[in-house]
Amino acid sequence: MKRVLLKLSYDGTAYHGWQVQDNAVTVQSVLQDALFNTFGVRPDVTGCSRTDAGVHAEEFYCHIDIPENLPESAFTVGLNSNLPNDISVLSYSEVADDFHARYCAKGKTYRYGFYFGTKNPFLEKYFLHLDKPLDVELMNEFCKSIVGKHDFAPFSSIHRTVEDTFRTVSECFVYTEDNKIFLKITADGFLYNMVRIIAGTAYAVGMGRLKSNCAIQIFEQNNRTLAGETLPAKGLFLQKVYY
Amino acid sequence: MKRVLLKLSYDGTAYHGWQVQDNAVTVQSVLQDALFNTFGVRPDVTGCSRTDAGVHAEEFYCHIDIPENLPESAFTVGLNSNLPNDISVLSYSEVADDFHARYCAKGKTYRYGFYFGTKNPFLEKYFLHLDKPLDVELMNEFCKSIVGKHDFAPFSSIHRTVEDTFRTVSECFVYTEDNKIFLKITADGFLYNMVRIIAGTAYAVGMGRLKSNCAIQIFEQNNRTLAGETLPAKGLFLQKVYY
Repeated sequence: MKRVLLKLSYDGTAYHGWQVQDNAVTVQSVLQDALFNTFGVRPDVTGCSRTDAGVHAEEFYCHIDIPENLPESAFTVGLNSNLPNDISVLSYSEVADDFHARYCAKGKTYRYGFYFGTKNPFLEKYFLHLDKPLDVELMNEFCKSIVGKHDFAPFSSIHRTVEDTFRTVSECFVYTEDNKIFLKITADGFLYNMVRIIAGTAYAVGMGRLKSNCAIQIFEQNNRTLAGETLPAKGLFLQKVYY
Repeated sequence: MKRVLLKLSYDGTAYHGWQVQDNAVTVQSVLQDALFNTFGVRPDVTGCSRTDAGVHAEEFYCHIDIPENLPESAFTVGLNSNLPNDISVLSYSEVADDFHARYCAKGKTYRYGFYFGTKNPFLEKYFLHLDKPLDVELMNEFCKSIVGKHDFAPFSSIHRTVEDTFRTVSECFVYTEDNKIFLKITADGFLYNMVRIIAGTAYAVGMGRLKSNCAIQIFEQNNRTLAGETLPAKGLFLQKVYY
């Protein structure tokens, strides 16, 4: 057997996230079906994270243990031809037996996208539509205040399953492109719904509903209800995974 | 009553084209439902063209006769909130009673898109995926040869319903952007499947399967079978309508 690392990209619109679930189509289950159709075996597939339903990935990694004799081209051309159009294998590499797509990830970058102005059918699937622009300067003040090591429990869903809720955010900022606004965030790890709640808080700051220094109080009181709403999954992209 | 011209944009992936059909969801039928939900009336809607199933529109016009008292904002904000995310009203204007969205159109611009390289889930819905680049210089030689007034019958489906098959192409060229290749074409009108067959012929030329001067023989012999295949609808966008 050899351990293989696949770099994927997917449009998450049609999927209930990455992880296999009963009675729901997920990226992992579709990938396992495609592996079976390509190789006649159905190996375990371990992803770099559990993305939520509807979240997209510009890049996403998973590792698989497969028989030595399966050739590389089968994973790129072959597997791609058995995958639907909204999931793609971008690249293939062989890794050490103890490499782990999730535990070896040193960090990840996500981005959340907004656009404003007239409704655009070609942006609706990947951005949150706003009636008017946001105050990007205020949003960036908020973003700065969450960089560093903090207990991000108040910026995560109460349905999280981990014990340790400290994470280190190494960068967080907002930038614009035409009528689009992006929040980009890099951290050593993310709690359940963390990016969508941070983006929702930045959005509330940009709308003038929360103050740009609100994070101080949110961290101090460790109070989820002081932060912004959980924004819709469709605006969220996993952009980079660092090993 | 007043006549109103709406400028729409839509992602055609989910629709069987513009025109109302039995047992199929079309952009026109969804728009009529949204008009009914917004105004309580179901007016006739006349589109600028019958786009095929799966074709997209960056802009598309339709005219509607509606009671005088319906306010403009209801057509933009109101109607948009009753339309699905893949159809948008971009703008509204009042026009003369004899204005006709289809017959008054002096011309239209379409573009057909290809991309090459690794399969990209975010381009798959709007582009035809190629394994390798095309010879753009040869494609442009072909494109030049179809500019002008010609009988485009051999570049249209035999299922066309019009008698007069002469059309005047005012511009046709191919250009690239990163790993994308676009064919852009403007004419006073288009026959059924005309852009998809012209793009299919340009594609065959770019692949080296047809000669760049093939149009001479195709026009002379008026022979559909000498032209290229009808490419998939997903790569086709209606870009501009001229009044």
